Amino acid sequence: MRHCRAFPKHPESVVTDSPIDETHAPERRSWVASAHDPRTDFPLQNLPLGVFRPKGAAEFRIGVAIGDRILDLAAIATQLADEVDSAVTVLTAPSLGPLMALQPSAWRALRRALVQRLEAGSPHQSALEPFLFSMADAEMRLPVRPGGFIDFFASIQHATNAGRLFRPNAPLLPNYKHVPIAYNGRASTIRADGADIRRPNGQRRREGEETPSFGPSLRLDYEMELGIFLGGGTAVGETVTIDAAWQHIFGFCLLNDWSARDIQAWEYQPLGPFLGKSFATSVSPWIVTAEALKPFRVPAAARAADDPAPLPYLLDPADQAMGGLDITLSAWLRTAAMAAAGHPAERLGTASAAGLYWTPAQMVAHQTSNGCSLEAGDLYGTGTISGDGPDSLGSLLEITRGGSEPKTLANGDSRRFLEDGDELSLTGRCEKPGFASLGFGTCRGTVLPALPVGT
Amino acid sequence: MRHCRAFPKHPESVVTDSPIDETHAPERRSWVASAHDPRTDFPLQNLPLGVFRPKGAAEFRIGVAIGDRILDLAAIATQLADEVDSAVTVLTAPSLGPLMALQPSAWRALRRALVQRLEAGSPHQSALEPFLFSMADAEMRLPVRPGGFIDFFASIQHATNAGRLFRPNAPLLPNYKHVPIAYNGRASTIRADGADIRRPNGQRRREGEETPSFGPSLRLDYEMELGIFLGGGTAVGETVTIDAAWQHIFGFCLLNDWSARDIQAWEYQPLGPFLGKSFATSVSPWIVTAEALKPFRVPAAARAADDPAPLPYLLDPADQAMGGLDITLSAWLRTAAMAAAGHPAERLGTASAAGLYWTPAQMVAHQTSNGCSLEAGDLYGTGTISGDGPDSLGSLLEITRGGSEPKTLANGDSRRFLEDGDELSLTGRCEKPGFASLGFGTCRGTVLPALPVGT
Repeated sequence: MRHCRAFPKHPESVVTDSPIDETHAPERRSWVASAHDPRTDFPLQNLPLGVFRPKGAAEFRIGVAIGDRILDLAAIATQLADEVDSAVTVLTAPSLGPLMALQPSAWRALRRALVQRLEAGSPHQSALEPFLFSMADAEMRLPVRPGGFIDFFASIQHATNAGRLFRPNAPLLPNYKHVPIAYNGRASTIRADGADIRRPNGQRRREGEETPSFGPSLRLDYEMELGIFLGGGTAVGETVTIDAAWQHIFGFCLLNDWSARDIQAWEYQPLGPFLGKSFATSVSPWIVTAEALKPFRVPAAARAADDPAPLPYLLDPADQAMGGLDITLSAWLRTAAMAAAGHPAERLGTASAAGLYWTPAQMVAHQTSNGCSLEAGDLYGTGTISGDGPDSLGSLLEITRGGSEPKTLANGDSRRFLEDGDELSLTGRCEKPGFASLGFGTCRGTVLPALPVGT
Repeated sequence: MRHCRAFPKHPESVVTDSPIDETHAPERRSWVASAHDPRTDFPLQNLPLGVFRPKGAAEFRIGVAIGDRILDLAAIATQLADEVDSAVTVLTAPSLGPLMALQPSAWRALRRALVQRLEAGSPHQSALEPFLFSMADAEMRLPVRPGGFIDFFASIQHATNAGRLFRPNAPLLPNYKHVPIAYNGRASTIRADGADIRRPNGQRRREGEETPSFGPSLRLDYEMELGIFLGGGTAVGETVTIDAAWQHIFGFCLLNDWSARDIQAWEYQPLGPFLGKSFATSVSPWIVTAEALKPFRVPAAARAADDPAPLPYLLDPADQAMGGLDITLSAWLRTAAMAAAGHPAERLGTASAAGLYWTPAQMVAHQTSNGCSLEAGDLYGTGTISGDGPDSLGSLLEITRGGSEPKTLANGDSRRFLEDGDELSLTGRCEKPGFASLGFGTCRGTVLPALPVGT
């Protein structure tokens, strides 16, 4: 049970980034009819950005999701030039990197311009309609190739659950409540939604064996995470103070940090995970902007009464008051047998990012606290998000307690870890009375069999 | 003491990459006089590549080092077009990335073309002379921005020495002799030679303190490493078998993996080093090509008789026979007091990369064994290179046994760890009877005081 620890709340404390504004007003509706389907992830108030091409087209370009359609922003970049600085340069790029390199004022200007144009009654409707594409007929790719990928470990529930399996006597290490623990991941294998995931081969020591062997991972897992794309950028030696951190947070996606538990367990001492993680990381292709998520900001998660206060460089009253994000993530499994029988995917777990022990602003302040530069397009993962209950776990490692308690699915299939042919999907959703509900689309991947060893 | 373990030596085993050829012939001399100064690092047989600009020039361009001069390859790219595929495209780029993306045949063709043009008697001399710049008047930058930086832990002496300090009872973990241990580092803070290094602030738990505090690292260290730049590139899901690994090794540099030992010690469990390393990594700016180093290939280091054989994916007869590199690295310290008194730097340690427990080819085969893609421009570090004796240690952590036995310098200065104003340099040299000696230039950095906390 977690009790609230009260940090100093200055009455003058303010969220230094901009407040909820007219772009979040729930009554505004789009002339794109599917945008006000209550089940859509992409109402007018969301407007996530991605990189797409209509099937058969040669070039990828930047688009914004609206209902079940994508508006081609490269095609309308010149129309936005008066309202958005550098619009033509950044919106005709084949990546969101140049846009991310701008400041939040430019990101907000783009959002305002798009809301106005896509709102019912806009005089721009007929000029835009030719540049609207069906999402179902579009191909998405990674919105930007991150220059760096950093994976945090911000869910104390996950850290405790996972730690218990690796270190039964010391599940939570002494540094956990002081340091936003993180490691550098591999950026070259970050994949957009839908990419198949090849089961990795690797060194692992099988149960009862003294020495390792090389072969397919026998403990392939997913990790349900939130991804955070960074913007702006800093020079080497510069730091970002916690009160300025949101100036560098461009947007969010879903992230599946595929993990080969057996490879990881054998290799991770003393320098951390490497090949157990580097074979693949999947992200959802639509970046939900920090702007769009403003209504879903919540207080940082309450700490237990005897938890230490964050060190000053990680403590900001505004962050404590409004630095969390109430995004509900769910993981879904559809085995090959379920797919063959036409069964839908089955939910494995649901948890909210609001419970994370460290906020996004704390992550930025920590990562740059030693003068490490931050680059536009950098990607953070939050680490697996798990909650307190058995239905809120973000990995099979936790659900099956390290594979010891198989999970039985409704169709009779059972899983300790992922099997070939399994499709794992993540979804994310934000709901709050008085605001339009938003979603993240999906982050899917299907497991392919390992390649024969020696190929 | 280390005894040789004999692995199967197939009489038909061959080095699958190309052999020593006429470009290595020691009798060839350049029309650039300084190239046959016996002390030069850059004779005609070396020809390392880098990215430079003459002081005051606007644009950086690719150059080759010859004696104390740099030949501007961008300026002569069209002259090389008949001999080197894509010469104009890759040599006029502001980075070596495009050249690295080609195949070894192109790298060899470039080497041959340059040896011919720079050799005494070449008919090209007068046409090239206008494009020769003084190295002393040139500014160097990072030759390529690595998409990924992976740091290995390949010196068993270093792993043992360092392990003893962190884990006195288990210095070498059970996986060490099976797995080429590595972690992903931070690419955004890789700096070229000469960049000042700001002492990082960070969380560390000081001696006698229960809880951590945030402030300047009190245990700033260097690590003497070899850097390996990768070329070619593979798709996600592809592996590079060990016998093909040298096809992906473009060249080598010196690498100083600056380390804040106190930050690292506090943060590194369970996910490995992060802020203790990410503030800076220095590399020497000249990449000595794998081609140039052919004469200095040696057998893989002998393993102890009771060491396990490498698993098959890490075992290749040709690699065992010729996969090591006899490059002698040295680290040099010049304190502010030494500099003020006009004293030269003092050598802290010297060791050869020939002693590494894992070869470069084993690193490539391991890193890609799980299907992780390799990208042209990726950088590996070998990890700190230490040898067996007290004068062969590659970090202050080892030299001063974790700071407990200060190192006294000739001028009376003493060091547990690096102090502000200290200049740390690495040098590297290859010498072998019957071949021209080569060097790596220097990899220098001077420690600046930490910024005040909160800035």
